[in-house]
Amino acid sequence: MNRQIIAKRTTAIRRELKRKRISCLIVTKSANVTYATGFMGDDSWAAITPARTCLLTDSRYTEQAGKECPSSGIVERTGLMTQAVARLVARLKSVRAITVEKSVSLADFEALEKQFKRRPKSVGGIIEAVRGSKHSSEIAAIKASGTIAAKALQRTLPHIKGGISEIELAGLLDFQIRKAGATNSFDTIVAFGPNASRPHHQPGKRKLKKKDTVLIDFGAKFKGYCSDITRCFVLGEAMALYRKVFNVVEQAQAAAIKAVGPGVKLTTVDSAARDVIRAADLPVYGHGTGHGLGLEIHELPFLKGDAKGALKAGQVITIEPGVYIPGKLGVRIEDDVLVTDTGRRVLTRQCPHSPGLRG
Amino acid sequence: MNRQIIAKRTTAIRRELKRKRISCLIVTKSANVTYATGFMGDDSWAAITPARTCLLTDSRYTEQAGKECPSSGIVERTGLMTQAVARLVARLKSVRAITVEKSVSLADFEALEKQFKRRPKSVGGIIEAVRGSKHSSEIAAIKASGTIAAKALQRTLPHIKGGISEIELAGLLDFQIRKAGATNSFDTIVAFGPNASRPHHQPGKRKLKKKDTVLIDFGAKFKGYCSDITRCFVLGEAMALYRKVFNVVEQAQAAAIKAVGPGVKLTTVDSAARDVIRAADLPVYGHGTGHGLGLEIHELPFLKGDAKGALKAGQVITIEPGVYIPGKLGVRIEDDVLVTDTGRRVLTRQCPHSPGLRG
Repeated sequence: MNRQIIAKRTTAIRRELKRKRISCLIVTKSANVTYATGFMGDDSWAAITPARTCLLTDSRYTEQAGKECPSSGIVERTGLMTQAVARLVARLKSVRAITVEKSVSLADFEALEKQFKRRPKSVGGIIEAVRGSKHSSEIAAIKASGTIAAKALQRTLPHIKGGISEIELAGLLDFQIRKAGATNSFDTIVAFGPNASRPHHQPGKRKLKKKDTVLIDFGAKFKGYCSDITRCFVLGEAMALYRKVFNVVEQAQAAAIKAVGPGVKLTTVDSAARDVIRAADLPVYGHGTGHGLGLEIHELPFLKGDAKGALKAGQVITIEPGVYIPGKLGVRIEDDVLVTDTGRRVLTRQCPHSPGLRG
Repeated sequence: MNRQIIAKRTTAIRRELKRKRISCLIVTKSANVTYATGFMGDDSWAAITPARTCLLTDSRYTEQAGKECPSSGIVERTGLMTQAVARLVARLKSVRAITVEKSVSLADFEALEKQFKRRPKSVGGIIEAVRGSKHSSEIAAIKASGTIAAKALQRTLPHIKGGISEIELAGLLDFQIRKAGATNSFDTIVAFGPNASRPHHQPGKRKLKKKDTVLIDFGAKFKGYCSDITRCFVLGEAMALYRKVFNVVEQAQAAAIKAVGPGVKLTTVDSAARDVIRAADLPVYGHGTGHGLGLEIHELPFLKGDAKGALKAGQVITIEPGVYIPGKLGVRIEDDVLVTDTGRRVLTRQCPHSPGLRG
């Protein structure tokens, strides 16, 4: 990872640590470790002090860490992670107390408590908040991940025909994502017909029939960054109800996207979509209107009815309203949107709403 | 999930709770929730008292929970999970103190501490220990998952030819697993040539060349249960070094499998494999010789040099010795093995070592 980018991130993190009088933050959440050090492996923690950043890893990853983290000291642990933390802190001058990220498991926290013979302080959300505003290289990575997802769907579209099962279709799409050198950012959802009325449907053996609707919610993860897209199609001529619902969801999404901009309240964007659906006398969805995405598939901010705060330039969010009518159908449309200095830019426009299949 | 099976599990868990004087265990680890209730969804906890088991879930899962958990009370939460726990406990007669699984995040533990106005007790490993000995239905599920993995590999073998990339091969294998109605039990590892010397290699764009070796470490997850298999092949005529290493690893694995039986020390099985490799003057692997598997891909027991305890009938473990020579090659062979009353049974024999490709 580029030294300058890491330096910029570290400066922003240290500013927060200073403000909160934290002399040594133990970073335990994988995405935060990646963000602060550049390390892309697993099972590793970081320690950040005003003077240095150390990555605590094991022999499987030492070589990789040396390449990925030129700005961090690499500590190769042999025993338990919590013992390695205690040993490192004992060596660091002017650090005696540690503050641990709240995402740590209680088991590890208790082990640290034992090592330090007192309950460490804990803190949540510091690096997550810094991660909220994306650097241009991160935005490029999210866009690249969206392009891979879009191409994968494009290549999968010809296979959407009668007789294919949800599971097979998900498998074909995942294969295309893999072939492009990426992984799934989460388990692909493929739902045919009324199955789509469950927002978290797991692909099953149901086979596609004529006039069936198809909902695909999927994303790629590329260079660590996620995309998240939902598209809906229909095989053949769409039923009148589907056409109506699809148009309303499309309008709801357009209204929410149009509302996106720096300084706009999260609840304003959330309501923009819901109001359109309510005005059309259709049931309003139970999930959020969108969420931040980046190194994690779900990160700050969350666009919900009870959300506090406003959008900031540099954030990347999903906008994904839906309409669900149990036993009948489900329609959701989701794109990834960058908050710019002046408004917004949709990063996933290239993802097809196939004209041949579109409802 | 079958009521009788759940009742048996609950009895075993309650026996442990009684022994440890725990009046209400809050189960937070997903695999433990599944084990204790039958529930296969996400984002849900369970509460187990001497008299009842409750599943705490949300509206996305209420319908599914009703079907999967006939023996549990279903509590549909609307607010935070930790608030729902506090409300439930207030309603349960004779329970005032809770004990929380240590796998909980510190953030959730602190939220519970706030709800209960004191630090809850914590405990680790209770349900994990009960899960160690598998019921015949669980063994059947692991075996079925191994059969799916074996068939998927069988169907992928014809594609192992010059020019295919690691990523494509992994994608094809994953597709076959999906097509069989299962998911991956972990991210498939495909490593060509010297890439196999890194036990946790991530599949890349490297293309298969003549005389290249192929290492595939993969598994299916079916009805919640995992399989975990590693196979090594070579394209065309194997180099002398590869042939030697392959034979030694095969012998090391056979020696460890032969050592498996109830009452046998974990370290005895571990050494059985390492001794063969050491005697052949080859480098001894840095990872464990095997691990338990079931609802999780890695669970108790862990077969390592410093492991304590012995094998018990009903456990299912992997046996996976390897030899890694950086810059040259890596060979690992892995099968899933049931500890029986009298010895062992290999559950993944059906998985091909392809004669056409085998080194």
